[in-house]
Amino acid sequence: MDRAPRMNFMSDNTAGAAPAVIDAIARANDGREASYGADQVSRRLAARFSDLFEKDVIVHPVLTGTAANSLSIATFCPSWGAVFCHAGAHILVDECGAPEFFSGAKLVPVEGEGGKLTPQGLKAALGHFQPGFVHHVQPKMVSLTEATELGTTYKPDEIAAISALAHERGMRVHMDGARFANAVAGSGKSPAELTWKSGVDVLSFGATKNGALAAEAVIFFNPAEAGDFEYRRKRSGHLVSKMRYVSAQLDAMLDNGLWLALAGQANDMARRLEAGLRAIPGVGIAHPVEANEVFFTLPDHAARGRLEKEGARFYVWSSSEDPVPLIRLVCAFSTTTSEVDAFLAAVRRTLGV
Amino acid sequence: MDRAPRMNFMSDNTAGAAPAVIDAIARANDGREASYGADQVSRRLAARFSDLFEKDVIVHPVLTGTAANSLSIATFCPSWGAVFCHAGAHILVDECGAPEFFSGAKLVPVEGEGGKLTPQGLKAALGHFQPGFVHHVQPKMVSLTEATELGTTYKPDEIAAISALAHERGMRVHMDGARFANAVAGSGKSPAELTWKSGVDVLSFGATKNGALAAEAVIFFNPAEAGDFEYRRKRSGHLVSKMRYVSAQLDAMLDNGLWLALAGQANDMARRLEAGLRAIPGVGIAHPVEANEVFFTLPDHAARGRLEKEGARFYVWSSSEDPVPLIRLVCAFSTTTSEVDAFLAAVRRTLGV
Amino acid sequence: MDRAPRMNFMSDNTAGAAPAVIDAIARANDGREASYGADQVSRRLAARFSDLFEKDVIVHPVLTGTAANSLSIATFCPSWGAVFCHAGAHILVDECGAPEFFSGAKLVPVEGEGGKLTPQGLKAALGHFQPGFVHHVQPKMVSLTEATELGTTYKPDEIAAISALAHERGMRVHMDGARFANAVAGSGKSPAELTWKSGVDVLSFGATKNGALAAEAVIFFNPAEAGDFEYRRKRSGHLVSKMRYVSAQLDAMLDNGLWLALAGQANDMARRLEAGLRAIPGVGIAHPVEANEVFFTLPDHAARGRLEKEGARFYVWSSSEDPVPLIRLVCAFSTTTSEVDAFLAAVRRTLGV
Amino acid sequence: MDRAPRMNFMSDNTAGAAPAVIDAIARANDGREASYGADQVSRRLAARFSDLFEKDVIVHPVLTGTAANSLSIATFCPSWGAVFCHAGAHILVDECGAPEFFSGAKLVPVEGEGGKLTPQGLKAALGHFQPGFVHHVQPKMVSLTEATELGTTYKPDEIAAISALAHERGMRVHMDGARFANAVAGSGKSPAELTWKSGVDVLSFGATKNGALAAEAVIFFNPAEAGDFEYRRKRSGHLVSKMRYVSAQLDAMLDNGLWLALAGQANDMARRLEAGLRAIPGVGIAHPVEANEVFFTLPDHAARGRLEKEGARFYVWSSSEDPVPLIRLVCAFSTTTSEVDAFLAAVRRTLGV
Repeated sequence: MDRAPRMNFMSDNTAGAAPAVIDAIARANDGREASYGADQVSRRLAARFSDLFEKDVIVHPVLTGTAANSLSIATFCPSWGAVFCHAGAHILVDECGAPEFFSGAKLVPVEGEGGKLTPQGLKAALGHFQPGFVHHVQPKMVSLTEATELGTTYKPDEIAAISALAHERGMRVHMDGARFANAVAGSGKSPAELTWKSGVDVLSFGATKNGALAAEAVIFFNPAEAGDFEYRRKRSGHLVSKMRYVSAQLDAMLDNGLWLALAGQANDMARRLEAGLRAIPGVGIAHPVEANEVFFTLPDHAARGRLEKEGARFYVWSSSEDPVPLIRLVCAFSTTTSEVDAFLAAVRRTLGV
Repeated sequence: MDRAPRMNFMSDNTAGAAPAVIDAIARANDGREASYGADQVSRRLAARFSDLFEKDVIVHPVLTGTAANSLSIATFCPSWGAVFCHAGAHILVDECGAPEFFSGAKLVPVEGEGGKLTPQGLKAALGHFQPGFVHHVQPKMVSLTEATELGTTYKPDEIAAISALAHERGMRVHMDGARFANAVAGSGKSPAELTWKSGVDVLSFGATKNGALAAEAVIFFNPAEAGDFEYRRKRSGHLVSKMRYVSAQLDAMLDNGLWLALAGQANDMARRLEAGLRAIPGVGIAHPVEANEVFFTLPDHAARGRLEKEGARFYVWSSSEDPVPLIRLVCAFSTTTSEVDAFLAAVRRTLGV
Repeated sequence: MDRAPRMNFMSDNTAGAAPAVIDAIARANDGREASYGADQVSRRLAARFSDLFEKDVIVHPVLTGTAANSLSIATFCPSWGAVFCHAGAHILVDECGAPEFFSGAKLVPVEGEGGKLTPQGLKAALGHFQPGFVHHVQPKMVSLTEATELGTTYKPDEIAAISALAHERGMRVHMDGARFANAVAGSGKSPAELTWKSGVDVLSFGATKNGALAAEAVIFFNPAEAGDFEYRRKRSGHLVSKMRYVSAQLDAMLDNGLWLALAGQANDMARRLEAGLRAIPGVGIAHPVEANEVFFTLPDHAARGRLEKEGARFYVWSSSEDPVPLIRLVCAFSTTTSEVDAFLAAVRRTLGV
Repeated sequence: MDRAPRMNFMSDNTAGAAPAVIDAIARANDGREASYGADQVSRRLAARFSDLFEKDVIVHPVLTGTAANSLSIATFCPSWGAVFCHAGAHILVDECGAPEFFSGAKLVPVEGEGGKLTPQGLKAALGHFQPGFVHHVQPKMVSLTEATELGTTYKPDEIAAISALAHERGMRVHMDGARFANAVAGSGKSPAELTWKSGVDVLSFGATKNGALAAEAVIFFNPAEAGDFEYRRKRSGHLVSKMRYVSAQLDAMLDNGLWLALAGQANDMARRLEAGLRAIPGVGIAHPVEANEVFFTLPDHAARGRLEKEGARFYVWSSSEDPVPLIRLVCAFSTTTSEVDAFLAAVRRTLGV
C-alpha cells in the first residue's frame, strides 16, 4: 500500500521502534545469560535509573503499561481499598478493569479540567469515604497520569499539592507515566522534580509509546516499599524469562538521553501542529499542548470526513452525537515535519481556507 | 568473563534468540502499523497456524508461558472448578499460583511416572470429587505438559486416552506446550496428532524456550470456544500494543520449519548427551530422553561438586537431603556438539573413568 | 437506660425481629433435620415463592443483603463485565466493594433523580462502553434498588423501560430488594409486576430489614439461569449448615402475608411522619415518600442539634459542609404512632412553632 | 415420619439448637439496638472470650465455619502465599475452594496419621518451597483442625511443636475449631493451652455444630493483628446487620459452661459407642475416639446395608470401591444413651452376634 503522504496521528503506539532499540536487542543476543532478570543488562538498570532520578530506586521491568500500572497499584492497595484517579484516566477507562483484577480495589473517578486532578476535586471525592467505616472501601491511593490523556502536564507544585493531601490521609501516590518522557521533555523539569520530589511513591515509566517494542519500568522511590511486587509480577505472568531483551530496551533509552530526544521530537511536532492549526480559521485548540498530543475541533463532521478522505489518520475523541468533532492527534518519535505540514495543508484544503 | 569451554545446561531460557527471530523483529520495524494485533503480521498468524495444525484455529499471541497457560485455563475453568495436572507440573509448582490467580480455580496434583498423567491416575483423583456436590470444587479441566517437565513425551494414544476420560466427565483438555516443538521434533508425530486429533482443546504453543525472545501462542482448536479470552488477556495486561513484534517472532518460527529445526538441534544434543552418559560407569539415566532434557544421577554430591568446578552449569533436581544427586541438563537450539563433548569429558574426569 | 420517649429512626436494621419470626425459629428446632437446605422448611420455599410470584422460580436463602446482591451479580456478570447502578446505590457505596469481590466486575455509577435510574441516564452511561472493544469492560447488568435508597419506588413501566434497554444490549437486570416489601406494600403492585413482568431477571428479596433476624432470598425468575449460584454460595461461606433456621424466617414472612403487614406498618408510619412534617413551617420534604423512609430538611444545624438533644435518633444524609441538613428517617415494622407523634412534637419544639 | 428409634449419626449439623440458645435469641429481641455489632451483647463478647482464654483477645462473630476459616486465612496470608494443612482438612476438601477465594492463596495438602499434621510432615512439605524464590508461592500459614476430621485431637505439645516450626519460618498458625468444644471437653486441657499457649495465632471457634443455629467466632490472640479482618468480613457479606442475634448465641454458649456441657454430652456418647462397638466381634475401631466422632469398620457392604435398613443413619467415609466400609458416626449435644444403645443393638443384629 502507498503510504505517502503519510499523515498518521492515530496513536504513538502505531509507530515502530527506534532503531537504537532494535540494535540494543540485537546486541543483547550474545550467548548464554542468566534468566528472569539476573542478566547483566537487567542488573545495571537499578543504578542507571537511580542516577536518572537522583535517588536510590528499585526498578522492575514489565512488558506493558497496563501491567506496570496494575502491579504498582496492587503493591500498595489492599482489596478493600480505593484508588482515586481522573474520570478519564487510562486505568479507569481503557484497561478493561486490569487494576481491579490485580488489586481487587475500587477505582473512584474524579472530575477535573484538562484531564488533571486538583486537590479540591480530590478532597471532595474523599469526603464520600468515611475513615474506618467498614461499609466504605478505604482511600489508599491516588493515581496521576503524566502527561495526561489530554496532552496536558502537571507542574511539580500541582503534583506536590495532591501528594500532600494524599499522604495526610495515609494514601500513596502512583504516577502513570506512559508518556512520562513527553512530560519531562515538555516541561523542562527533571524526572526527580516530577516524581519523588513532588511526593510520588511509584511510577510507571513508559518506554513503549516512546519508541521501545514493549518495555515499561516500575520505579519504586522508597526501596523498602517494593514489597511483594516480584511475587505479584510472577503470579500475573509478567516475569519474562529472557529478561535481557526487555532490559536492553530500557537501557538503550537511557543511553545519551535517547528517551528525551525521542520524546522531544514528538513534542516538537505537536507544537508545530498546534501552531499551524491555530492559524487556520474554523479550527479550535481544545487543551494546552504540553506534550505530544493535540486536541482540536473542526466545524462539523463533514469537514472531518473530508479530512479523512485526504488520507489523514486520527482518533475522534468526541462522541458520535456531538455536533462538533473533537479530534485527537498524537505525534510519535518518528513523526516528521513533512508529515505535519502535509496534514496542515490537508486541513486547509478541507476547510477551503 | 571467559565462557569457554561453555557447558551451560541450566535451562533453555538462558539461551539467546535465534538470529532469524532477531531479523524478523528488525524487518517488522517498518513504519506505522495498526496496534493491538490489527497489524499485517498478526493477521496472518491464524492462517499460518491453521495450516500447521491442519484445522481452522484461533491464535492469540502472548508474551510468557505463564500467561499462555493461565489464560487458557481461565477461559474454560470457572472459579469453582478444578484443574487436574501432574504433581510436578509447571503450572502447579513453578508459576507462583498464576493459574489460580487468573481463574480462581483449584489445581489438583496427580502422581504419575516420568512426569506423565495416566488415565488410571486421573480416574483415581477424580474419585475424590463428587459431581454436583457443592462442597467440592468441580472437575473442569485436565492440563498435560508436552514435552513433560522430565523430558518425556506423551504419545498420541496416551493423550487420547486421557482426553476421552476428561471429555466423558465434561472436562476440557489443556496442553502446556512450552516445549511442544521438542515433543513434535522428538516424536515424529504431527502437531495435529499430538493435539486436537488426540482430544486437546487448547494449546500453549511455546516459542520462547525454543529461540524466540518472548512469544507464545494460545491455540484454540474449536474457534467458537475462544470465548472471552481477549477480554481476559487485556485485563491481565497481556495485550501488547505493538503486537507486530510478538507476532513477527512466531511468524519467523513457522518460516521453513525453523521451529522444528531449532528444536531438533536441541533434541539431538540431548540424545548425544544421553548416549555419552550411558557409556560412563557410575552414571544413571533417570528418565527416557524424548525431547531436549536429560536427567541423570551421579554417585554422590562430591562428584557433583567437582563437575561444577569444571565449569559445568546445570540444575540439581533432587532435594539437598537426597544422597544421590539427580541432575537436569537442558539443551537449547544453540547447544553445540563441542559443548556436549566438553561436558562428557568433564564428567569422565570428575568420576576418574 | 430509659428509652422513653423512644424516637429511633436510625435504620430499620436497629429494630428487632417480629415475634412470629422468633416463634418460627423455635418451632423449627424440632429434632434432627437434613442440613444444607435439604430440610423440610427449605424444600417448601420454592413452591411458596413460586406462588407469591405467580411463576416457577428458584429460591436460594442467604444471610445478608450484601451476599444476596453480590451472589446475584456474580451469577450473571463475568469478571470483565460492568454493572450499571445508581450513583447512590447500596451495592456501589455501602458494601465495601463486595459485588466486585464476588464477581470481579466493575460497577458504573449513573446519576438520576430521587435515587432512580432512567433509560436516558442508562443510555448515556452505556455510550462510554464500546461493544466488543477489549479495552472496555463490557456492559452485562443493570441493578435497580426497589425501594430506592431515598425511599422512592420504581413503577412497573419505569422498570420495564430500563429492562428493555438492558435486554436489547444483552444485559441482565438485578433488583436489590432489601426493602422490596416496602415497595410492594407502598405501590399496591404485585410482586410479579414489580419484577419479572417488568423484566427483572434476579431479585434480592430482603427480609432482615422487615423483621427477620438474618434472612434474604435470591429469586431467579428463569430457573434455567440459576447456574452456578450454589457453588458460589458455598465458596463464599454463605451456605448455612442448619439452613432450617434461615428458611423458617422466610417461611414465617410468607404466612398470612406477614411480610406485607410488617412493611405496611412501617410505610404507614413514614406517611404519618411526612404528613406531620409537611405541616411544620421551616421543614422541607426532599423526596416523595413511597416506602418507609422520609428525607426532610431543617433550616440549620443548630435545629438539628436541638432535635438530637430531644432524644431523636436519625441519620444526617447531607455532608457536614452542607449548611442545610438533610435528615433521613427510617420506619420499621415496630415503629408506633406514639413514637412518630413524639418525634413530630420534638421537631415543633425544636423550631419553636 | 416415624423417627423412633432414632439412630441419626450423620453429622452434628443435623442436630437442632440447644434450647438455651433459642432462649437467648428470644431474649435478645428486645426493642431497638445498634446494628453491625455495636449492640450490648456483641460488645461484651470480647471480655467474655478474654476471660475464657485468659488473655485479651479480639472476637469477631460470623455465621459459618467456612467464613470463619476463610477470613482468618485471608487476614494473614497474601495471595502469593501458601497454607499448609492436612490432606483431609475441611478447608481443603469440603469448602469448594472458599479459603482460596477469600485469600487467593494456595492450600498445600500434607499427609499425616489420624487426620493430624506432624512437624516431620510439615517440614518435608515445606522443603518443596524455596524462600524468596518468586516462582514458588511462599509458606505463610499452617492450619490445624481441632478436633480433627477423624475425631482425634492434638495435644498441646503437638500443637506447640508445629507452631514452633511455623513461627521459625515466619508463618502464622490457624486452628479450625469447628469442633473445638469437643476437643477441650475431651482433652481436659484449657482453651488457652490448646491455642495461644501452644502458639496458635487465630482460632475459628465453632458453636454451630455444638448447638447454636449459626454462630462462629474468630478469635485473634494478638489484638494488634486483627488488622483488616473487619473490611474483609463486610466485603464478603459476612457482617450481619442485626448482630445481636449472632452474638447472643455465642454469649449463651459461654453461660455456666454450656458449650462444654453440650460438647461433653456428645463426647460421652461417642465413647459409649466406642466401648459398645469394641465389644462386638467383626467391628474395628479405626481411629482413637477423642472427641464426638467414631470411625469403625464393618466386615462388608452387605452388613452396612443391613445396618442402614435397621434405620441407622451415618456417613460411609471410605470410597465405594473399598471392600471394607469405614463408617463415621458423629454424636451431637442432643444424642442420647438410648439412641446409642439402639444403634449398638442394631449392629449386633446386623452381624448376628
